[in-house]
Amino acid sequence: MSSLAEDRYFDPDPGVRRLARALYEETRGLPIISPHGHVDPRILAEDTPFPEPAALLVQPDHYVLRLLYAHGLRFEDLGIPRRDGAPVESDPCKVWQRFADHYYLFDGTPTGAWLNYELHEVFAIAEPLSGDTAPRIYDEIREKLGSPEFRPRALFERFNIEVLATTDAATDALDQHRAIRESGWTRRVIPTFRPDTLFRITAPEWPAAVDRLGVRDYSGFIEALAERRTYFKAMGATATDHAVVAPYTAALRPETADRLFRLALDGKAAADDERRLTAHLLMEMARLSLEDGLVMQIHAGALRDHNRLVFDRFGRDRGADIPVATEFTRNLRPLLNAYGNDTRFTLVVFTLDESTYSRELAPLAGHYPALRLGPPWWFHDSLEGMRRFRERTTETAGIYKMAGFNDDTRAFCSIPARHDLARRLDANYLAGLVARHVIAEHDARRIARALAYDLAKQTYRL
Amino acid sequence: MSSLAEDRYFDPDPGVRRLARALYEETRGLPIISPHGHVDPRILAEDTPFPEPAALLVQPDHYVLRLLYAHGLRFEDLGIPRRDGAPVESDPCKVWQRFADHYYLFDGTPTGAWLNYELHEVFAIAEPLSGDTAPRIYDEIREKLGSPEFRPRALFERFNIEVLATTDAATDALDQHRAIRESGWTRRVIPTFRPDTLFRITAPEWPAAVDRLGVRDYSGFIEALAERRTYFKAMGATATDHAVVAPYTAALRPETADRLFRLALDGKAAADDERRLTAHLLMEMARLSLEDGLVMQIHAGALRDHNRLVFDRFGRDRGADIPVATEFTRNLRPLLNAYGNDTRFTLVVFTLDESTYSRELAPLAGHYPALRLGPPWWFHDSLEGMRRFRERTTETAGIYKMAGFNDDTRAFCSIPARHDLARRLDANYLAGLVARHVIAEHDARRIARALAYDLAKQTYRL
Amino acid sequence: MSSLAEDRYFDPDPGVRRLARALYEETRGLPIISPHGHVDPRILAEDTPFPEPAALLVQPDHYVLRLLYAHGLRFEDLGIPRRDGAPVESDPCKVWQRFADHYYLFDGTPTGAWLNYELHEVFAIAEPLSGDTAPRIYDEIREKLGSPEFRPRALFERFNIEVLATTDAATDALDQHRAIRESGWTRRVIPTFRPDTLFRITAPEWPAAVDRLGVRDYSGFIEALAERRTYFKAMGATATDHAVVAPYTAALRPETADRLFRLALDGKAAADDERRLTAHLLMEMARLSLEDGLVMQIHAGALRDHNRLVFDRFGRDRGADIPVATEFTRNLRPLLNAYGNDTRFTLVVFTLDESTYSRELAPLAGHYPALRLGPPWWFHDSLEGMRRFRERTTETAGIYKMAGFNDDTRAFCSIPARHDLARRLDANYLAGLVARHVIAEHDARRIARALAYDLAKQTYRL
Repeated sequence: MSSLAEDRYFDPDPGVRRLARALYEETRGLPIISPHGHVDPRILAEDTPFPEPAALLVQPDHYVLRLLYAHGLRFEDLGIPRRDGAPVESDPCKVWQRFADHYYLFDGTPTGAWLNYELHEVFAIAEPLSGDTAPRIYDEIREKLGSPEFRPRALFERFNIEVLATTDAATDALDQHRAIRESGWTRRVIPTFRPDTLFRITAPEWPAAVDRLGVRDYSGFIEALAERRTYFKAMGATATDHAVVAPYTAALRPETADRLFRLALDGKAAADDERRLTAHLLMEMARLSLEDGLVMQIHAGALRDHNRLVFDRFGRDRGADIPVATEFTRNLRPLLNAYGNDTRFTLVVFTLDESTYSRELAPLAGHYPALRLGPPWWFHDSLEGMRRFRERTTETAGIYKMAGFNDDTRAFCSIPARHDLARRLDANYLAGLVARHVIAEHDARRIARALAYDLAKQTYRL
Repeated sequence: MSSLAEDRYFDPDPGVRRLARALYEETRGLPIISPHGHVDPRILAEDTPFPEPAALLVQPDHYVLRLLYAHGLRFEDLGIPRRDGAPVESDPCKVWQRFADHYYLFDGTPTGAWLNYELHEVFAIAEPLSGDTAPRIYDEIREKLGSPEFRPRALFERFNIEVLATTDAATDALDQHRAIRESGWTRRVIPTFRPDTLFRITAPEWPAAVDRLGVRDYSGFIEALAERRTYFKAMGATATDHAVVAPYTAALRPETADRLFRLALDGKAAADDERRLTAHLLMEMARLSLEDGLVMQIHAGALRDHNRLVFDRFGRDRGADIPVATEFTRNLRPLLNAYGNDTRFTLVVFTLDESTYSRELAPLAGHYPALRLGPPWWFHDSLEGMRRFRERTTETAGIYKMAGFNDDTRAFCSIPARHDLARRLDANYLAGLVARHVIAEHDARRIARALAYDLAKQTYRL
Repeated sequence: MSSLAEDRYFDPDPGVRRLARALYEETRGLPIISPHGHVDPRILAEDTPFPEPAALLVQPDHYVLRLLYAHGLRFEDLGIPRRDGAPVESDPCKVWQRFADHYYLFDGTPTGAWLNYELHEVFAIAEPLSGDTAPRIYDEIREKLGSPEFRPRALFERFNIEVLATTDAATDALDQHRAIRESGWTRRVIPTFRPDTLFRITAPEWPAAVDRLGVRDYSGFIEALAERRTYFKAMGATATDHAVVAPYTAALRPETADRLFRLALDGKAAADDERRLTAHLLMEMARLSLEDGLVMQIHAGALRDHNRLVFDRFGRDRGADIPVATEFTRNLRPLLNAYGNDTRFTLVVFTLDESTYSRELAPLAGHYPALRLGPPWWFHDSLEGMRRFRERTTETAGIYKMAGFNDDTRAFCSIPARHDLARRLDANYLAGLVARHVIAEHDARRIARALAYDLAKQTYRL
């Protein structure tokens, strides 16, 4: 990997490449709509300079961490804090050096593509990162981070972000969002309502979370959820987000929901109770979305914290979440039958099981008015992954049932990298269709813009 | 979308494109073998002019309907009759206008490719369809439909159809087929024996269907099925067709089959009884195929009428059938062990679960003499879908275990559109193999012809 | 198919082709590392001339047999011995003629590509094989087989094989390997420890196999396995191999393992007992691998002997093994949690279910240090199969979590054919990445070498 080629990621065929470049030129300058992601709003509320390169680019990025870990590097040596407080590497220069020594591991990965963009486009680093160049590049980035142009809000503006949605616990007071609003800075940073912790009635965190809501029975619980949604909406939210292993939905009778909730309060809920109550709560969320207009998102299929040792020692989000096969046709049927025919409702679905693209998701989105397909998620937000997504969903669902791109990132500086990659690949995909006379060039221009900007804005009601 | 490019759907690489065009030129003029489809034989029995464009191209095509519905159009506004008789749009010009206003939704879909072919090649429309051109194009098509060259039999001849198979309920008297035969028109239109309704012992339609057969016990039922098969064969049928959610096969002991059948007669059969009896009846169908030589087809994996509201209001086949994951290796084992080694038997299998192409179906077809692979079905009968099918099955099953193309359509005018698309994509696929020196050009010519014509004719014994 | 084009299997785009050829030129001459395969060591121990073409190229190759069988050829007519001793074709010329008459069936299959290589590169046959040329080519190959240059060891040297691993029953005395070592021939042929028969406690072969070990209880059994591993290691083995339908792993309590083993000794073990004990024994194998350093391989997802008739009449390995859907995320979790974080342990996993590439295997290998991905296996060791494997695993797992190529073949002469094909396709894949500016050309050169040689050598500790 070295500095960035102007025609990167485009097909080598000269005709396709010329078309791809032309389509990309029409979208590269569009503002960024980022309707789903995990940037910490504190960064923008406080607007203090980022500390140094390792804390910015290595330590918070589970994509980076997992591949280093997979090659035998210890998290301790990367300065990742242990839950037991045992000492870990405290010198960020050493962390950066270890990362740079293994930078070749990212060859051919989307993480490599994003990092190259960040180094060369965001930080204007001229030479490729390697063990040799690591110290110089470290110093150069560190110095830049100290300048006003590299403070978070300045970068937000430079990145041309029109809207950034964060993801926030349903019980969050949204103080950071309030601080941003009250700061006088006029860019749009909005929360997203994510009640997962409240739905996991067997999890150790559940009692405390429910306590924070101050509810005592199921009907109070639903009221509290509705109230929290209203609060989030007042703070700018336009969407909710729900992470589940299986996207199972099913309505319970009120007395059953009530009974399961009481079991949970008594600490006696079992895994199957949680499964059934979650299925019912997803139905309730759809019902409330019809009322309050919040777009509903379901992310299905990640088995979290697969690696017990990593979880025990370092906690969540360290790159040890692994996908499982996922079923949508039967699981979503109750919810889609109840609410999917209503054009006022929008449900965006994400999967980690690519076999569902053409088998289940595109046919469902190609029928139910309320359903849209989220972009390729997580492991599949990659060059080949995005190509597979387009090739397997477009023909059945059509372009206009897509939710548009979202970057889904925790790594603030990767936002423009990810949108640029997506815009390039969509331009290239459309160029291939034009070259094969599947669509006309003027249609491709309209579609390129929709994929880069319009669809995300419409879908998330921004 | 606009008028049709001569090199459409071919790879942009000039070498591949030249080869693809040459291979396509060898197959484009071959007669159409249509061994599996859903055209209403009444059209050809009566040979009355098609009424007008909306009734011909929009209303009967569930591919068109579902994508319009998915974007919020109401079936009522498209003139789809409601089961409760409530009024729906009665002006076909308005239906056509709504369709045309949304024609951009079909960009990049196979339905768009077929419709473009129909408009430009079948009806010689010069300008692209859009909201603006809708009224003029409506009038132009409507006028043509009134002329003798656009009556069904004339189109059949113009389309160069050698054989057209329809799909018919096992209890059908085949009056339309009889009328065609007795009309003196000598083109070949044949029925296909489809006993699904008789196998769904828990369905509300079952008692009436069994009544029509006039049977009282299981052995009488099997005899009646054998008789109906004989009748279909006498009327020209060469194949049977069976739609199942899971392709489960298993032989029952006679007394068990008898008991399940009696349960069904008493209205006491449960879902699992139906599952077991269907598994057994598929075995019986294979046994009878060995006797009477009818080719057996199994279509697996469509969960019908996923959307209760659409089913209740508008009935079947409105685009609300959704695929589910499908298992063949274990499910077909009993049937293949009993009959799959017999070269006199032919079983053609279709799937909606593309993950089974390389994992199960190609290995099975690459071993059992009786098994052939049906072409990519329904959602997968598309540009990318056909490419995936070839790439994932050819290397393991070989070209000559394919069943050839079939159009599977209800929309009469889409027949040449679908065959043309398939011939183009197969020519392009083979051109890619020649360009990469995987096969020689003279072999590609032979294979192109096999895929376009010979294999369907051989497989279905036409 | 005819003689071999110099640029075969490369993309037609001139730029990609030029790059692919350049990358291939750097790897084509590298020695062959063959760390997993099924060549009979007796061939190299005895070094007697191969008898004649049919016995060399047709009869031992289940890839060839299954496709001929699938097209209606009888195994009897191909000279495959029946278990009941009934007569089969005894004239190898007739077997060869039947094979050649149907050689077109291999068009577009990897078997066709390998056979073409063997005919043209190994045996220097000038004309294409067909029914017409069959007798001449038979004579030409037969004559060559009689010359010293075509004896097994000479071919081994000509093929430039650096290491060849065979696969051997855990109870095997390894006499052939001993004979090779004691013969003074210095090439490296090593065994692989495969204890499958000992793990299948319900199989008819189990009592005899356990008897050969001379053990009476579970702890003796584990000791015996450890001893056999030590013996294999002393004879050069660096790896173990385990074939399972589902890769289920789970530790049992000692008393449970003991009880299941006693049930097995008493002939009372049921399928679920075998499933549980195998899951536990895989854990034990991983534990022993940590001790003795043998690399552990798991091959999952083949349902053996799907066709009862073929198995009863001709026995195993006749091309009637069919893949099933396979789950790794949950099944491997216990083993990976126990041993997967240990960098001293290496586990190589193979699948027949391509849907697991991007969904489960790449994410697992992209996290656990001990896990590496085996190359595309069996049906997927093909042109398109290798492309799909690279495209679906590289972006998530990275290049350096791959186990490198292995040929997995029983057919000795196909070894160079298979490595050549893999080297060409990897060169082409990397050329595509370079052409799209995903990686730099000098990185591609390093990676091409890793995929062709280094990774297999490192992974298998050779």
